[in-house]
Order: sequence, then structure tokens, then C-alpha cells
Amino acid sequence: MTLLDDIADVGRDARRGGWSRHLGDDGEATLREWFAEQAQRRGLQVETDANLNLWAWWGSPGPDAVVTGSHLDSVPGGGAYDGPLGVVSALAAVDALRERGVRPSRPLAVVVFAEEEGGRFGVPCLGSRLLTGALDPDRARGLRDPDGITLVEALGGHAARLGPDPERLARIGRFVELHVEQGRVLAPRGEALAVGSTIVAHGRWRLSFTGRADHAGTTRLDDRRDPMLAAAAAVLAARAAMVRHGDEARATVGRLHATPDGTNVVASRVDLWLDARGPLPQALVDDVVAAAREAADAEGVTLEVRSESSSGAVTLDPALADTLAAVTGAGRLATAAGHDAGVLAAQVPTGMLHVRNPTGVSHAPDEHAEDADAEAGVTALADVLEELCR
Amino acid sequence: MTLLDDIADVGRDARRGGWSRHLGDDGEATLREWFAEQAQRRGLQVETDANLNLWAWWGSPGPDAVVTGSHLDSVPGGGAYDGPLGVVSALAAVDALRERGVRPSRPLAVVVFAEEEGGRFGVPCLGSRLLTGALDPDRARGLRDPDGITLVEALGGHAARLGPDPERLARIGRFVELHVEQGRVLAPRGEALAVGSTIVAHGRWRLSFTGRADHAGTTRLDDRRDPMLAAAAAVLAARAAMVRHGDEARATVGRLHATPDGTNVVASRVDLWLDARGPLPQALVDDVVAAAREAADAEGVTLEVRSESSSGAVTLDPALADTLAAVTGAGRLATAAGHDAGVLAAQVPTGMLHVRNPTGVSHAPDEHAEDADAEAGVTALADVLEELCR
Repeated sequence: MTLLDDIADVGRDARRGGWSRHLGDDGEATLREWFAEQAQRRGLQVETDANLNLWAWWGSPGPDAVVTGSHLDSVPGGGAYDGPLGVVSALAAVDALRERGVRPSRPLAVVVFAEEEGGRFGVPCLGSRLLTGALDPDRARGLRDPDGITLVEALGGHAARLGPDPERLARIGRFVELHVEQGRVLAPRGEALAVGSTIVAHGRWRLSFTGRADHAGTTRLDDRRDPMLAAAAAVLAARAAMVRHGDEARATVGRLHATPDGTNVVASRVDLWLDARGPLPQALVDDVVAAAREAADAEGVTLEVRSESSSGAVTLDPALADTLAAVTGAGRLATAAGHDAGVLAAQVPTGMLHVRNPTGVSHAPDEHAEDADAEAGVTALADVLEELCR
Repeated sequence: MTLLDDIADVGRDARRGGWSRHLGDDGEATLREWFAEQAQRRGLQVETDANLNLWAWWGSPGPDAVVTGSHLDSVPGGGAYDGPLGVVSALAAVDALRERGVRPSRPLAVVVFAEEEGGRFGVPCLGSRLLTGALDPDRARGLRDPDGITLVEALGGHAARLGPDPERLARIGRFVELHVEQGRVLAPRGEALAVGSTIVAHGRWRLSFTGRADHAGTTRLDDRRDPMLAAAAAVLAARAAMVRHGDEARATVGRLHATPDGTNVVASRVDLWLDARGPLPQALVDDVVAAAREAADAEGVTLEVRSESSSGAVTLDPALADTLAAVTGAGRLATAAGHDAGVLAAQVPTGMLHVRNPTGVSHAPDEHAEDADAEAGVTALADVLEELCR
């Protein structure tokens, strides 16, 4: 995809590999400017809303609009497609409609939602959750990044404007998000595209273990209150819970921070983040917390558990899915990845198109989509938009 | 201690608590200036050697000198006494000798060794190891801090000068390091001071687990190669090894880094540092590595093990220890903490004085010494220096 090549150098992460593009960093700012320029080149009218989502309008912003788009931010060390593929495909679909001579009978917009991955401030789908009122703006303002910087400090004066925007939301007639496949279903099926059917329930929980810092050499067994041990038990319990709760369950600890993080120091505190998904994420969390608490008690360590985000299971709009399937001829795909589409679905008819990922890897540099599949995605999205804008 | 109060505000760590003072950071630079000024006020001649150790001479630098001192750097989030107590006690002992009208019959120096904790570049006793040739300067130049900055980048032109300094070393007739107790022996004994007898063997090993980054939600059990699981197994194996190898054994994981460290990402890599001490540290490490390798193999994760530093058991100079005991009347104390004295002991007659730590906590803000005990330490050190300088 030429448009993806355009931004291939933005937000590279030399240390982690791949790309790190997070709300308020230089890479993300560059992508915002790039998007605005691309939209203006296409004669689209660009707005930044109160929640830092970008909107590019073909026609006057108005009710019953057809909206498509995704996000440009990434997980830390992520791939090139998760998010950007949906944005560049939306721009390319606008080009295709223009080439076809289509004149939409209703407003059409390309949207870029802010901080979908929650890579900096921890809460995923930050922009869409704030827009829809699914996240309390006061809570958002107090979120901190890994360096302790609050959202307010990162955004400055803009932070005061965060919050639900029912007028803007009321403009959206239907929302369609195109996204690279996250998982390993379409390649074995031999299909380039799929229509989203459901999004599994998922959430993030922070487990904070507090013990007592002490000297790694001189502190005897009986004097130790080492939070790292209870954290390790929680990591293993997450895997055990995933096995116990069956095929649909996922429990992952990918982020873990020790304090003070010294080689010759028993840690005073360990924070870890549990990502849990499946029919009953809370049941997974309960299992992990029970095991973690037992390990913490045995070591004389305290455990505090906080839910950082939580999303119920989503069934995408069945009528819209039928339309997408009829227009594209694609089959259905359930996903265990969260999306802004899942947040929007609670408020407006929402659909998704997935583009085959031959590696199956996602949230990592090996994430991929073949050019031919990406082109098929653009054509399918253009067909869908043409149909919806009739 | 008034002199400790002087530097109480330098290098405070708001995030971790306590103090973080590492080679090349602002706090450590301030402490170097402070020390130079204190030494000059006392008419001592200050030098910085090729390995960034500071020397303050009473009398012309020369052979058969009596040298005392410690270090000013800290672990991340450390206490106020580990290191600085030995330096300020050395300065206060110089004052005491002056007040007594002592005129040393041989050169006397106060030394501040650089980066004793290895808090920034990973290798403890960096300054004394380089001075004595125990650390290859080329290896030192390639060391990296947690941000990936090499020692050469941090030190600039000075880095070319690093390396063994046999002439400087040959000046030292005897070395005595005063240090706050690290452990819980003197309080139950009811004794304010002790003479160091031995330092246990110890070392640092880095275990690097490499798996495959992927999406925390969509990646099925069979597709996961999650290095966090093997790392967790290693943490638990360290504790099991510590229990198995008996009372003197210590095995600790206080530092652990996940890459990319994203909540919704299966980690691609986890690095952890194993601090192992005891009669046979390598046996502890072998146990941990065996368990870690088994867990890594089960998960399809690779494991690389590197020794970052290693120190054999040290018996401090018996004749000097007898002198210290005779002069101070203090009992003996074996320690499981590493010291520059342990490095120096391989080359010059070396002794230690320990000052009671009522909390027993070390490498943490709760580390403490009562003023009366610290004063007793100064008097004892002054008595020792007077005796050795006769």
C-alpha cells in the first residue's frame, strides 16, 4: 500500500523493534499532520474533536453520515497494519469512489480515533470511549503514562474539553471499520476478507504487589517480603486459568514493572497488568487473583487489584453485517481483539471488515497484509461505502 | 551525622522513594563536588583518578599510605547510609585526628570509589575493579545503562583513560572501609560496631528469554511462545534454590524487564537479573538455569545466560582485622554484601568496620544508623587510623 509506505518511517522503535506511536508523542503528532494533509488533498474538511479524534468530511458534516476509519496509534513495538490499514484504506476508498464518479447522497467521513491501543495511558479506545461517554473524563484526566505524566500534563489546555459529545455521535448513521486480521483464521480458509460478527468480552486489570525492599545479599529467608514471587505466581496462574477456561479464554501478562528494579535489591513493589478475554473474563481474573493472593499471603506481601478497563461482548449490527456480506461476498469472522468499532456499536449501527493476515501475528512487527489483499480490502470498502451512501 | 544531613537532598528519587545516585547523573556529580569541597576545607589534596575514583590526600600521595573511604553512589531507590556513611566517617575521622593533634607519620587518604552498586551500568564495584584490573576496561566501555547508553557515551573522552592503575594501587599500604551494617546481627548482639571478617562469594547473572510477540487477545495457546512464563518459573526457581542450598544461600530476582512491555501484547523478550550469593553461588545459578531452561523449552522460548559479574569469597586481612579488633574492642562480622574492600583485598591488606543498622533493612530507604552509633564509628575509625599511621 503506497499510503502505508508514506508513514513507514514514522514512530519506529529501535529498541523494541516495530513502531511505537502513542497519544502525544512525536510520531503520533506527525501522523495527525499527515492525515490532515492527505484529507485536504482529497478536498475533505478536517476537524479535531474534543477527544482528539480526527474527522475528514466529504460533504457537510451532518446526520445519517456514513463513517469509516480506524486508528493510527500502535501498541509499544507494534506492527504497521493494526489501525493504519483501516485509515489508509478509507482514504483509498474515497479515491476509488471519486474515480467511479460516485456522488454520495449523504455525508461521508473518514475518522481516526485517538489512542485505540491504550499504549501510553493504559485505557484502550480512549478517544471512542470518551466520545461515547463510556469513559468518565475525570478518570481519563487522571490517567498516567509509565513515566507518571498525567493525561492533563500531556495534553495541556485541551484536557479540559474531554468528554461525551452526543451531537457529534448523532451525526453517525453507520460506522464501518476495516482492520487487519488479528489471529489465524483467514489464511487456512483461503479467504482474503471477512465481515466482523462479534468481539469477545475483554478487559485489563492491574495487580499491585507491595512487599519490602531490602538487600539481596544479606536478607535471610524469614525476613523477606518479596513481591516478585507473588507476581511470578500470578503470571503462571494466568496461563493455568487460560488452559482451564477453554479454547476461547485468553489470560496474558505482557507488562510487568518492578520497583526499584535493582539487581541487588529485593523489590519493594511489583505491578503487573493482566489482559483477560473470553466469554467470562471476570472468571479468569478471579482465578488469577485467588492464586496471586495465596502467594502474596504466604510471602507477607499485600495485593491490590484494580480494573483499568472492561468491555462486554459485542455483537456487531446484524443488518449491517448482512449488507457487508452481500456487497463483498465475504464470510464472517469473530474476533478476540478489541476495536473502536466495539465501543461505537453500543450507540450506532456498526460493522467491520477484516483483511487476511498471513502471519497471524499481531501487535508485533511481523503483522502483515499482502498488497493484493489490502487492495481487495479497499475495493470491498469502496463497494460498501457506495452501497451505504446510495 | 551533620555531614550526612549536608547531602540528604541530593539524588532523591520521588518515584521509587529513597535516593538514586548513579555514575554520571546529576546527583552523583553534585556529591563529587561536595566531597572535593569538603576535602579542600580540610586541606586535603583532591585527585580524580583514571577510573573516576576520588582521592583526598593528607600529606603527599606516596607509598605505604593508610587509605579509608567507601562510595557515594546508591542502588536505585536506596538508603542514605550505604556508602556515604563510610565517606563522611572518614572525613570526620580526619577532623578527630586533627583535634587530637595527630601528625600521621605516613600518607593518609580518603577515597570515594565510583559506581560501587553498579546501579546504572550493572557491574558493581566498577571503580575499584577497574583500578585493580579485575575488570577489563574494554568490557567496561561497552556496558550499557537501562536506556541503552554506553559507558563511553556517558563519560565522553574520559572513557579512553579507564584501566588498571598499578602505580596508584602501590601507594596503598592498608585500606579500611567503614560501612553501615547490612543485615540483622549487631542489634540482637547489642553491639554498635563490628570488625569485618569475610565477604561471601556473589555474582550477577542475566537471563534473557526470547519468545514471539503477538496479540494478547487473539493468540491461541498452541501459537504462544511467551517468555514471561519461563521468566516467572525462573523467579520461583530462585526462591526454591535459596531454600534448598541452606542458610547462607541467597538467590534474588529484583530486576525484570519485559519487551515491548505492552498490556495487550504477548512479550517478545524478558530479561531478568539473578543475584546469587553463598558458599557456591554457581550451584544456585545452575539450579535456576536448569528450571528456567525446562520452562523455556516447554514454551518454545530460548534462554541465554550471561555472567555480568562474579566475586569469590573474601577473607579480609587477618592481621589487620586483629589490629582493628584490638583498637576498637569490637567483635567480628561476616557479611553477605559486596564491597570495594572485597575487591581491594585481593591486592592490599584490607579491613572493614561495620556500624549497627537497627532496622536491618538495606538497599532501601529504611536503612539506618543511630547518631550515637555513627559517632562511635567515627571514633573507632579515628583510633584505627591513628594506630595505623603511627
